[in-house]
Amino acid sequence: MTDKTRIWTAALIIIGDEILSGRTQDANLAYLAKWLNVQGIRLKQVRVVADEMDAIAEAINALRIKYDYVFTTGGIGPTHDDITVDAIAAALGVGVVIHPEARAILAGYYKDKLTDARLRMARVPEGASLLENARTGAPGIRIDNIFIMAGVPVITQGMLASLDGKLEGGAPVLSRSVGAWTAESRVAVLLGAVEKAHDGVQIGSYPFWRDGRTGANFVLRSTDPHVLATAAEALLAELRDAGLEPVDGEI
Amino acid sequence: MTDKTRIWTAALIIIGDEILSGRTQDANLAYLAKWLNVQGIRLKQVRVVADEMDAIAEAINALRIKYDYVFTTGGIGPTHDDITVDAIAAALGVGVVIHPEARAILAGYYKDKLTDARLRMARVPEGASLLENARTGAPGIRIDNIFIMAGVPVITQGMLASLDGKLEGGAPVLSRSVGAWTAESRVAVLLGAVEKAHDGVQIGSYPFWRDGRTGANFVLRSTDPHVLATAAEALLAELRDAGLEPVDGEI
Repeated sequence: MTDKTRIWTAALIIIGDEILSGRTQDANLAYLAKWLNVQGIRLKQVRVVADEMDAIAEAINALRIKYDYVFTTGGIGPTHDDITVDAIAAALGVGVVIHPEARAILAGYYKDKLTDARLRMARVPEGASLLENARTGAPGIRIDNIFIMAGVPVITQGMLASLDGKLEGGAPVLSRSVGAWTAESRVAVLLGAVEKAHDGVQIGSYPFWRDGRTGANFVLRSTDPHVLATAAEALLAELRDAGLEPVDGEI
Repeated sequence: MTDKTRIWTAALIIIGDEILSGRTQDANLAYLAKWLNVQGIRLKQVRVVADEMDAIAEAINALRIKYDYVFTTGGIGPTHDDITVDAIAAALGVGVVIHPEARAILAGYYKDKLTDARLRMARVPEGASLLENARTGAPGIRIDNIFIMAGVPVITQGMLASLDGKLEGGAPVLSRSVGAWTAESRVAVLLGAVEKAHDGVQIGSYPFWRDGRTGANFVLRSTDPHVLATAAEALLAELRDAGLEPVDGEI
């Protein structure tokens, strides 16, 4: 049975020079964050590292002991720059083997064209199991609390779908937004006071400038729907008392 | 004089629950990466951490000794969740003080409405200097090799503009792309061979699926324009020999 009070945590390691060079905009972080929240798991840290053995291994070893789950994206394809499996095996001090089930999946996908390069995608750290890939042949990989996924978002999302509801988690974080056309600095004191008065609620303040006007969205977060509602009502009331016309929701 | 052979490195710490929750898509990483490359500095690692003192301080202390420059975005506004300055001061073991010049800038910006909340934005780790903010009042902060910037992209970009050409760097990484309608696995061996044959060139392979077709872009990177051109020509020739019709550029 799931313990709803324990906080379950995760980290993401995004592996790829294409992200660090600015060539490619990552699209997996936000998707994973929301998916994890539905599972009752909180994304607590993300690292983007280069396609280098040491960089990947260091991140793996720092994060796998600190968080309940570690996810990686990128670097599991058939080409020379795909070194994620080797780096994670090295981090864990295990060898790399061909997973028989992965080989069978690839043989079914590529038929008589299962070249050595393609067979690279059946390589896993010793002791690993597979994550289903509904989109292309090559499966993802699970070893211990590490989930090794593809970098291409549509494939990553398919691999996460195969894990839906299967990871132990706690209570999802609920959120509610309140917006107002004001400089956040004008309401800073009352924001802090409302947060302080409602135990277990965090309030983030996110200013913006639009059409020459200054506004801010205040995002309240809590695992308790009643506390969240009470805090949101309190914030709306305080903002009205301050002479503003707040919106129940994002502006 | 700038040493063109030394490799200058940087890390970015993105501070913010709004990124980790998936609410907000980061837009600073790619911009900073490209800006750094123009300065001859390579972005080698990015961490996204929560709005928590320990998380920020730990990232600062891990990265400031490892890389030439560390940039942070987020958490320097006037509200209770803006704790970046306190966390970095704690990491460095210094106090937090009101910077007189920052106070003067804010006084000029807010006139007689310089409240305590707004004055928070003049707080800096002891010993810091300021980064110009052309867009709003509150300046960014530099202390040692750490550059503390706003999270709102238009402000971040303005702060970077004020640093244009002022940081010591080496040779920018040049890149060139070659695209082909092929599964990357079909050309994996030749890709590795071309990289190996051209010292100082890295080739990244980025597959995609579009309109029901499989393609890949191959990005060659080097600081040497001649080596880069030679490697790109070699790759184009190899791909043609493999029966493909490669494109000189991204597909």
